[in-house]
Amino acid sequence: MRNKELGNDMPIGVGLIGLGTVGSGVVELLQDAPASLRRRKHVDFALRRVAVRDLDKPRSPALAPELLTEDAAEVVADPDVQLVVELTGAPPAFEWVSEALRQGKDVVTANKALLAERGEELFELALANGADLMFEASVAAGIPIIRSLRNGLVANRVESLYGILNGTTNYMLTRMSRGAGDYADVLKEAQDQGYAEPDPTMDVSGMDAAQKLAILCRIAFHCTGTGRDVFCEGIEQIESRDIEYARELGYAIKLLAIAKQQDGRVEARVHPAMVPEDALLANIHDEFNAIQVQGSAVGPQVFSGRGAGRLPTASAVVADMVELVERKAAGASTSIGDMILGEDAVAVVPIEDVQMRYFMRVLVRDQPGVLAGIARILAEERISIASVIQKERDFEGGSVPLVIVTHEAREAAMQQAQQAVATLDAVQGAVKLIRMEDL
Amino acid sequence: MRNKELGNDMPIGVGLIGLGTVGSGVVELLQDAPASLRRRKHVDFALRRVAVRDLDKPRSPALAPELLTEDAAEVVADPDVQLVVELTGAPPAFEWVSEALRQGKDVVTANKALLAERGEELFELALANGADLMFEASVAAGIPIIRSLRNGLVANRVESLYGILNGTTNYMLTRMSRGAGDYADVLKEAQDQGYAEPDPTMDVSGMDAAQKLAILCRIAFHCTGTGRDVFCEGIEQIESRDIEYARELGYAIKLLAIAKQQDGRVEARVHPAMVPEDALLANIHDEFNAIQVQGSAVGPQVFSGRGAGRLPTASAVVADMVELVERKAAGASTSIGDMILGEDAVAVVPIEDVQMRYFMRVLVRDQPGVLAGIARILAEERISIASVIQKERDFEGGSVPLVIVTHEAREAAMQQAQQAVATLDAVQGAVKLIRMEDL
Repeated sequence: MRNKELGNDMPIGVGLIGLGTVGSGVVELLQDAPASLRRRKHVDFALRRVAVRDLDKPRSPALAPELLTEDAAEVVADPDVQLVVELTGAPPAFEWVSEALRQGKDVVTANKALLAERGEELFELALANGADLMFEASVAAGIPIIRSLRNGLVANRVESLYGILNGTTNYMLTRMSRGAGDYADVLKEAQDQGYAEPDPTMDVSGMDAAQKLAILCRIAFHCTGTGRDVFCEGIEQIESRDIEYARELGYAIKLLAIAKQQDGRVEARVHPAMVPEDALLANIHDEFNAIQVQGSAVGPQVFSGRGAGRLPTASAVVADMVELVERKAAGASTSIGDMILGEDAVAVVPIEDVQMRYFMRVLVRDQPGVLAGIARILAEERISIASVIQKERDFEGGSVPLVIVTHEAREAAMQQAQQAVATLDAVQGAVKLIRMEDL
Repeated sequence: MRNKELGNDMPIGVGLIGLGTVGSGVVELLQDAPASLRRRKHVDFALRRVAVRDLDKPRSPALAPELLTEDAAEVVADPDVQLVVELTGAPPAFEWVSEALRQGKDVVTANKALLAERGEELFELALANGADLMFEASVAAGIPIIRSLRNGLVANRVESLYGILNGTTNYMLTRMSRGAGDYADVLKEAQDQGYAEPDPTMDVSGMDAAQKLAILCRIAFHCTGTGRDVFCEGIEQIESRDIEYARELGYAIKLLAIAKQQDGRVEARVHPAMVPEDALLANIHDEFNAIQVQGSAVGPQVFSGRGAGRLPTASAVVADMVELVERKAAGASTSIGDMILGEDAVAVVPIEDVQMRYFMRVLVRDQPGVLAGIARILAEERISIASVIQKERDFEGGSVPLVIVTHEAREAAMQQAQQAVATLDAVQGAVKLIRMEDL
């Protein structure tokens, strides 16, 4: 209906909620459109209404004052708005987006929390109202990973997926690996550089990456999990020393978001991981993101690029706007159908059942029988040891760090072992575990 | 018209020309479709006719004998075929594909030579007949680079594009860098492994990569060039020794396909290039392909994966088939419009006008004044020297290799200098140039 009223010759009325970093980037890309955009027959956007937090703030690029409102609901309700672009990241986004969908308006959003936690409701709402909801910008900004999974790799079963999905933590780990200091030092540096928020919790805890992984899992595996179902461990406990040991073993440490098919369910976890130093993901530095996808037909593919920032994120938003408009101009139906989890929906495997290799580091008193004690605990948990590093040179006032790398073991067994080792007399301080992924 | 007759509930009649490696891969992917494919509402393919070279050859997967023909024209003409998939790579492909388009039938092809050399005619034909022509598999097999450039990055001006687009040569260079021998040794190895053809000319000369680059340039830059307009130098002259010197300077040698915007024209060239060893492209090993795209909004992005092979290539073919069907099922018009080069078409810059850095290696007699003589020639051509390597240890029977790395210089000047240096008395044998790219 709406499409017929619109015809192909009229511009699409766009309502923008949020004119912050990304929103102003979108306006800039539309105003200064490259030839690739201008050539697209049906692409003709008219900005009809823009919700901002403060009407009086000076803005660049400048917008006609009559476009602006402080009330996002006005943008959604405006009859001249056919396409709502939500870029606030704020909690009321759910209300605005769901109201737009109820009215049959298409929505583009960059809001990962919204998608990860309430995607199910929104997709149902979109389908019921013949509207579409696109969200490429919600994961890895301008890297076209969502459309690649949905379209380019449509003929593949995704077998696994490894992502560096958080630029802040990748920047921090890169700086640590280059000798810029320990966790607190590089966090401060990231904050000074604008890569980390004053409250860095979402990033350093892994929650940001977990939400993005939940979104990817929905597309790649038809998985029901939300961000809260993804096992999540942050980088707060990583020390420079761990990075040095990793290097000695031929590994780099990255905050990885990992998802794998496993007997009809999906492993989904975010944690610091040791990855072989010649793997492409080990060579993704600074604030860059990357996703390695293992497809049943294509084998391993890697997509890398900037995972945040004004124009990289705006690029994904505009790509979604273009796809929506072309689909609508063609009288096409919504594409949201394949996002609805039907009978083939799969659940997340509890972390305790996941198997992988582990790096364990403990500080022990330099006395006979220590290694035997630890080895006995691991044997009791049926965990087998792949290698051990203990060096005289690391001796510090009666103690030495002892590093053990295991073969594949169940997480539950490893956690038992970790607790048991911590109770040994000769063990001082925490028993540190870092999971390993051979990619 | 055709779409109405078809309706959304009838399968799409597919005609396949070529049932070799890739063709049988496509049949396999369709027969054993993953859930992602089965979920797509409009995706219902029926194989109606298949052209093969030899009717009597046993085949797996098996096909009903009545589907098979030795006459490709029958496939195109079959009224039950709406979608023609051309996978022969043979020269008559132009006739088959153009006839299908004339009949308003959509075509998917993996034929890079066809696209690179005669794309213009085919796109015009497709547009004139309301048909569509898709070709993701023609470049880098299953890596979704063409749809990423057209859709995911639509809001970007592509500033530059660097590709490892030929798996055979990347395998050979990787093997040389790992000490597996010199050019002839690794060529033989690649042939034994099935990575190189008995006649390896298309691969080792760079022509295969040049054709792929021409296709990418059309999409990324709206560039008129064909494969023959791309400057092309192969890897035949690369020796292990060059790779060793490169490593000493912190570089790897890759056969790069390079395209850059330059004042309204496009540089387009394929040649061995020294790239910094910590660049992602330097870490693309064995038979893998990768493309690094610099977008005006997203910055640098890298896409990597297998660039050849049965299922990786079939994956791209099936993705194109799905996109076509979904577009048609929705009553959508052709998407071919933006492939037609209009007033904003750009030409290729002659190689002589391109500027870059160079690695020059000569064998010289160990006598006074040699370096001075070479330096004078470079100075006359206004080429400035960045570094020099000459080592006592490399002394061989009165001669030493001398390596010079230049700052940025014009190709024409460097070719002049190369000729002049070769005439010097103290210089023995060829003057080798390897271009450098700092990515």
